[in-house]
Amino acid sequence: MSEQFIGVDIGGTSSTVGLVANGKVLERTVVNMAGQNDPERFAEELVQAINSFGSNNIKAIGIGAPNGNFLTGCIESAPNLHFKGNAPLANLVAEKSKLSTFLTNDANAAALGEKRYGCAKEFNDFLLITLGTGLGSGIFANSQLVYGHTGMAGEIGHTIVQHRGRPCSCGREGCLETYVSIRGMERTARKLAHEQDNFEWIQKGSIDPSDIQKAAEAGDQLALQVYDRTAMLLALGLSNSIAHLGSEAIVFFGGIATAGDLLFDPFKKHFEELLLFNFHGKVKVLLSALPQNDAAILVAAALAQHEHH
Amino acid sequence: MSEQFIGVDIGGTSSTVGLVANGKVLERTVVNMAGQNDPERFAEELVQAINSFGSNNIKAIGIGAPNGNFLTGCIESAPNLHFKGNAPLANLVAEKSKLSTFLTNDANAAALGEKRYGCAKEFNDFLLITLGTGLGSGIFANSQLVYGHTGMAGEIGHTIVQHRGRPCSCGREGCLETYVSIRGMERTARKLAHEQDNFEWIQKGSIDPSDIQKAAEAGDQLALQVYDRTAMLLALGLSNSIAHLGSEAIVFFGGIATAGDLLFDPFKKHFEELLLFNFHGKVKVLLSALPQNDAAILVAAALAQHEHH
Repeated sequence: MSEQFIGVDIGGTSSTVGLVANGKVLERTVVNMAGQNDPERFAEELVQAINSFGSNNIKAIGIGAPNGNFLTGCIESAPNLHFKGNAPLANLVAEKSKLSTFLTNDANAAALGEKRYGCAKEFNDFLLITLGTGLGSGIFANSQLVYGHTGMAGEIGHTIVQHRGRPCSCGREGCLETYVSIRGMERTARKLAHEQDNFEWIQKGSIDPSDIQKAAEAGDQLALQVYDRTAMLLALGLSNSIAHLGSEAIVFFGGIATAGDLLFDPFKKHFEELLLFNFHGKVKVLLSALPQNDAAILVAAALAQHEHH
Repeated sequence: MSEQFIGVDIGGTSSTVGLVANGKVLERTVVNMAGQNDPERFAEELVQAINSFGSNNIKAIGIGAPNGNFLTGCIESAPNLHFKGNAPLANLVAEKSKLSTFLTNDANAAALGEKRYGCAKEFNDFLLITLGTGLGSGIFANSQLVYGHTGMAGEIGHTIVQHRGRPCSCGREGCLETYVSIRGMERTARKLAHEQDNFEWIQKGSIDPSDIQKAAEAGDQLALQVYDRTAMLLALGLSNSIAHLGSEAIVFFGGIATAGDLLFDPFKKHFEELLLFNFHGKVKVLLSALPQNDAAILVAAALAQHEHH
């Protein structure tokens, strides 16, 4: 019988717990996050969900969480969750489940998942970039995930690409994720609309990526410019990442990545222009090959499998 | 009898070959670089220099060279040397000396040297920054040097800190080393002199770091501004490096680093301001502790010792 692992994906509105074997999700269940402000009670609910699978062949538990710190096993002040300060979720789940439990942030989990089950199996040096509400990253160097001294490495979304640029939620200015994220694309669309006196765009209420995507697909010039600017700043940020790390590949994962060619065609053009000549033609650009509905569970299970062996 | 290693420091005008044991340089000799355009003949001269020490206890040879690639053992198109294309120096020296020979760039060698003999002994994750004609870097993550997929990782000097900024010798614009280097500081001094109609500075012929240092020590406002701007851009670039790597320390090495407090006091102020909050107060800033005259030989020998074991 194959070894089984638990993958837990912690989200703002719901978390998903899945039973995984051989890189496939066998069963899954959802835990509601409304009012979850007590880590201890939340850990109990997670363990109940795990027990509901009725498996006695589970080897370890992996948890992917926003602001998850592998070295401490804590969720550290995640803005979209209701826990106060540091929630020691790995220890709590381990105690209650009697199983080894590992926790890391979404992007590190995604990097481990793409390395084990996805399109990064053969790469010793690669970057995993999650595009969604923010821009997250997991860094593989010398075949190992880079956690850094305090477990908080891989903050490419908070590299400054425009000195004194847009205000960022981190308190600084010009961070990559103020441009390359759902909210960043909305800000770019509004800025262009006002610069160009584009009344059609100025009068829009909320603008989300699907609005921009639909408009771009219909040939709207402003929407296409939003993709081009977003792609250019993503290329600027990642050319700096490659200058640091000399990675063989960049793998994109998550929400905005589904925009596909609208974002990645201009990205590839800008990226080759902005890349240091040493690296021209040497960095593969890939989209996650994991099944979208299962990806977050699979990558969390990959963490469990990686640390268990 | 202690194991002995050879450290070779390749320079533009002369190269130095040293015999090292227990982290001390026992003997040294110099090879003139004038007219050195034949890697084979140069390798012979290096091996003659090594043989002149008369030691039969040498375990391995380490070479630190501009544009040295550890993975290929070649010096790859170094602008200050006269070799055409890629010079396979490690293989040539190994053949002629019958000793294991390893080659890397100056900054990677410096990182290995600080890890083995210097102030980085206890760090698993640190950045080594060389400040001089250019800005070089060696990156340790998870206790290993990061070479990247093609051996060319660690190009922090070619991260772009000002989009569409100063033209760089690499063909792009706004690279960190166009601001933070000997020539970068001269460019900043000239720019400030013209912006401020500062005739005393406008009329200067060549401006080198020692001019700026002397003027700053005498309280010259423009010279102090040059240090402040240089320090700010260095802080911007390195705050991005820390966001990637979560390093425990940054170690500075080489020429400009001798300016000491003039550069590092403003650097530390800007660095804490520009660093992502996760890392505030968590990154040590250190100057190389290796004896300046021996440092380049010692760090090349550290490469030999590291790879030999």
